[in-house]
This record gives sequence, C-alpha cells and structure tokens, in this order.
Amino acid sequence: MSTSPPDPGRLSINTATVRALWDLGQILDGCARHGIRGVSPWRDQVREMGLKAAAARIHGHGFAVTGYCRGGMFPGATPAERLAARDDNRRAVDEALELGARCLVLVVGGLPRGSKDVAGARGQVRDGIGELLDFARPREMPLAIEPLHPMYAADRACVNTIGHANDLCDELGDAGLGIALDVYHVWWDPHLEREIARAGAKRLLAFHVCDWLVPTRDLLLDRGMMGDGVIDVPAIRAAVEAQGYGGFHEVEIFSAEDWWKRPPDEVLQTCIERHQTSC
Amino acid sequence: MSTSPPDPGRLSINTATVRALWDLGQILDGCARHGIRGVSPWRDQVREMGLKAAAARIHGHGFAVTGYCRGGMFPGATPAERLAARDDNRRAVDEALELGARCLVLVVGGLPRGSKDVAGARGQVRDGIGELLDFARPREMPLAIEPLHPMYAADRACVNTIGHANDLCDELGDAGLGIALDVYHVWWDPHLEREIARAGAKRLLAFHVCDWLVPTRDLLLDRGMMGDGVIDVPAIRAAVEAQGYGGFHEVEIFSAEDWWKRPPDEVLQTCIERHQTSC
Repeated sequence: MSTSPPDPGRLSINTATVRALWDLGQILDGCARHGIRGVSPWRDQVREMGLKAAAARIHGHGFAVTGYCRGGMFPGATPAERLAARDDNRRAVDEALELGARCLVLVVGGLPRGSKDVAGARGQVRDGIGELLDFARPREMPLAIEPLHPMYAADRACVNTIGHANDLCDELGDAGLGIALDVYHVWWDPHLEREIARAGAKRLLAFHVCDWLVPTRDLLLDRGMMGDGVIDVPAIRAAVEAQGYGGFHEVEIFSAEDWWKRPPDEVLQTCIERHQTSC
Repeated sequence: MSTSPPDPGRLSINTATVRALWDLGQILDGCARHGIRGVSPWRDQVREMGLKAAAARIHGHGFAVTGYCRGGMFPGATPAERLAARDDNRRAVDEALELGARCLVLVVGGLPRGSKDVAGARGQVRDGIGELLDFARPREMPLAIEPLHPMYAADRACVNTIGHANDLCDELGDAGLGIALDVYHVWWDPHLEREIARAGAKRLLAFHVCDWLVPTRDLLLDRGMMGDGVIDVPAIRAAVEAQGYGGFHEVEIFSAEDWWKRPPDEVLQTCIERHQTSC
C-alpha cells in the first residue's frame, strides 16, 4: 500500500518508551524540546509527580494527552477484588479528566487468580466496563478498550482481538466507549481490515505504533521501533485513517534490552524519524 | 465442565516431549515400557534412525502414529524456495505413508524473508496446501493444518486460528484435509467452541495437549504440563469429543528449562498421570 508520510504534528510519545532513564518531568521537557505535540502518561508517574503538578506541566507545554495509561484489570477472584478495581478505575477516570486526556485506555485484565475460566473473565470484563461507563459517561471521559495480543490473554487482557472489542462496543453502546488500537497486538489478525472498518472513526479513539521483532526474545519487553520488525504499519495506519481517524500516532515501546538502555534523546529523535519513514 | 477421565489407551506422546535426553529408539522403547499406545515422531529423528528402521520399530511396538511432524513452511521469498518446500513436503507425505501416520501435520510457515505481507503469505499457504493436496489425496495421506498461536505468525505459521483453518478447508475441500488442534495455540480464542463445532469430526484429525504457564518465560520453549497452567483442557477435550472425535490425546511439550531436563521416564509417568487428572 502506498501512503504519504504522516503529519509530524501527530506524533505522540507514550511515556513508557523513555521512562527507564527519565522521570515524567524529564520526559515532558524532552518531548517539548523535540517538538513533539502529544504524550500519553502512566498513572504511577503522574502519582509520583502529583496529579495537579503533572496537569500543570502538561498544560503548560500545550501537549495533547492522547491517552491515559491505564484503567482496567476488571476480573477479580473475590467481590472485594472487583470492588477495589471498580474504585481504582473511577479514580483513573477522575485523573484522566484532570489531565485532559482524550481517553482512558483500558487494559481489561486476564484470568482471576486460580481461575481457568476465560469466558467467565470475559463476562467480568463486560460487566466492569459497563459499570465504569455509568461513571465515565456523565463526566465525558471516553473509555478505550485496548485489545491485547493473545499471548497476554491469561495475565493482562482477555480481550484479544479488535473484533471482540467491537462486540463489547455493540453490547455496551458506543457513547463514551471505543477502542485503542495498537499495531503490536493486532497486526496478525486476518480480520483486521474488516474490523477496523466496523469500528469506524467513532470507535477509534487511539492508535499506537511500534513493531514486532523476529525473533521476539521476551513476551513483554521486546517490542521494536517502527521499521525494525515485520508489521506493515503504514498499511494499518492507512486503514485506520481511511475510516476518518484524525488523531495521533502514539509510540509505545517496551524494550528492556535495547531502546530503554539508549539515551532518551536518541530514542525520541529516532521516533520522530521513523514516524516519517515507517508509519 | 464435568468430564470423565479419558481412556488411558488414547494417550499419545509427541516425541518432542522427551527428545532432549532420548533418541527416537529410546523414546519408542520408553513409551512401550510405560504402556503408551500412540506416538508422533519428528522428521529429523526418523531420518537419523532411517525411515525403514523407524517404521519397523514403530510397527513392531504396535504404536499408532497419531501424526507425523511435520510438513508445511510453504511461503518462500523466491520461486526456488517455494519449489524446494513443495518437494520437501512431498517427501514428508511419502515418509508419513511409510510410517502409517494418521496425518501429516502442517505448520504452514510465516512471512517470507524480508516480507511484511502477511496476506500474501497466507495466499502462498493456501496455494501450497492446494498443490500438496493434489499429491497427498491419491496417496490417501490426510493433511492436518495446525493453527499456531498468533505469537508465531511472523516466523512459524500465519494460520493462527481454527477459524482460519476451517476457512482453508472450506476453500480447498475436505477430502484428505483437516485440522490438528493444539490447546496451547487456541485456548484463548473466544470463538473456539463455535469453530470446533464447525470443524466437526471429519476435520478434527489430531488433538494436542499441554498447558499455558503464567508467567510464560519463552515464546517457544516454555510450555507446561497439563494441569500446571491456565488452560481448561478437559473442557476443550469435551468440546472436541462432543463432535465425535475418537482419536488420541497427544502430549507435546517444549520445555527447555523444566521437562526437557527431567529424566524422561519421570516425564512419561507424569504424562500418564496428568492425562487422567488434567485432560
């Protein structure tokens, strides 16, 4: 597929990409220094800086907050665990509002401790999102279900395809609910194009990029920089934008042995370049 | 789901499970000694022993050969590579016939070297299976497409769901074509039960068991023994057998740091026990 390079102004950096060596303040300053316009911070970093301070720093730089990482983790082995998740997710919505995030990203959670009942976990996820929607809708904070790669079905997210995320949107209603689409999790799906079209612009709330390396040496922490792996990122971006998606392209790279060890300024510069050549 | 323990006579051992410390001759003798009735050998081991000698040893013990591992790897970067795959797959069919295997298992292959075109690879897979069927059908050797977990889409198999395997059977015709279903690859699939029913007894040519460990420390070599992970193996077996599947339950465990280091007699004894308690 032939595509033009993306608008450089639509690059966003998920703070996980450079957090191994920089704290949130350094990341925000670094992104501003490199002319990057969007960021997506993680809750623990925001907590460390303080929510109000983080919001002030982010707004001061004029960043778009392309997503807030993260809510979810709905399934629990006990009612108390599920209640704790509910309350924590409500706090995440409030924090996302304070930061002016475009959506709260939901990594929905996997099997409860000791369980082998993946269908049951999926039911808990549906119920948990439904309950959180009752809280988030009146506050106008969109929830973005992020389907995770099937290799995370047991321990991180039992929603593993964009088709399943679309089913949940169908069931729970589109208002304030959509999808965060990360190429890393969905590139292999034979129904990807069809399900992107099914989602449409109304559901596509965030678009994340990185690459799948061959070989992949670790299930969690060996993601590649765009262009270094086998994902046809431009084709997926084209499919997403053909639906009318007009948001950012958020780089989220977990890479314990490579990018996390490099100087963060070099990483950001590489993100800027690869955004133009390989997205 | 409540299920009765399986018939002990339907346990089969994929030789990969104990090959780290035993050669094929030791594996066959070991399985016979433990009263195991089915085996599924790998091509390199058969080559090492010699095809005719391996067939004689296997037939001498009276084993069912529940599958032959393996054909496939259809996609190639060049016509020469694809021709080489075609010829090698024909040899695999002939070997499977000599061994009296119930099917030739197809691990279909991933992206050709340097390619990011997963749809193109899938087209090559379809064409390759179609061409191999022309060879295998008159010889009456069934081909069993094994959908592999999506984490292997790039480098091992770009058929990653039983739904995709069913689509290929629809397109290429059921005669001499079916599916090898391994719980490790498909347990996460929300459409698993529906697609098992769609496959039915006619397409279900082999059933493989092991377990998904949490955490999984290696993408390839960290499979678990049935009962040690999160897969509800009895529920999947029940779904398969509800369709009329009457074949073996083949244990295939790649486990570089655990089971491959244990005495193979202990591994076989554990397979026998776990077949009764956790399948």
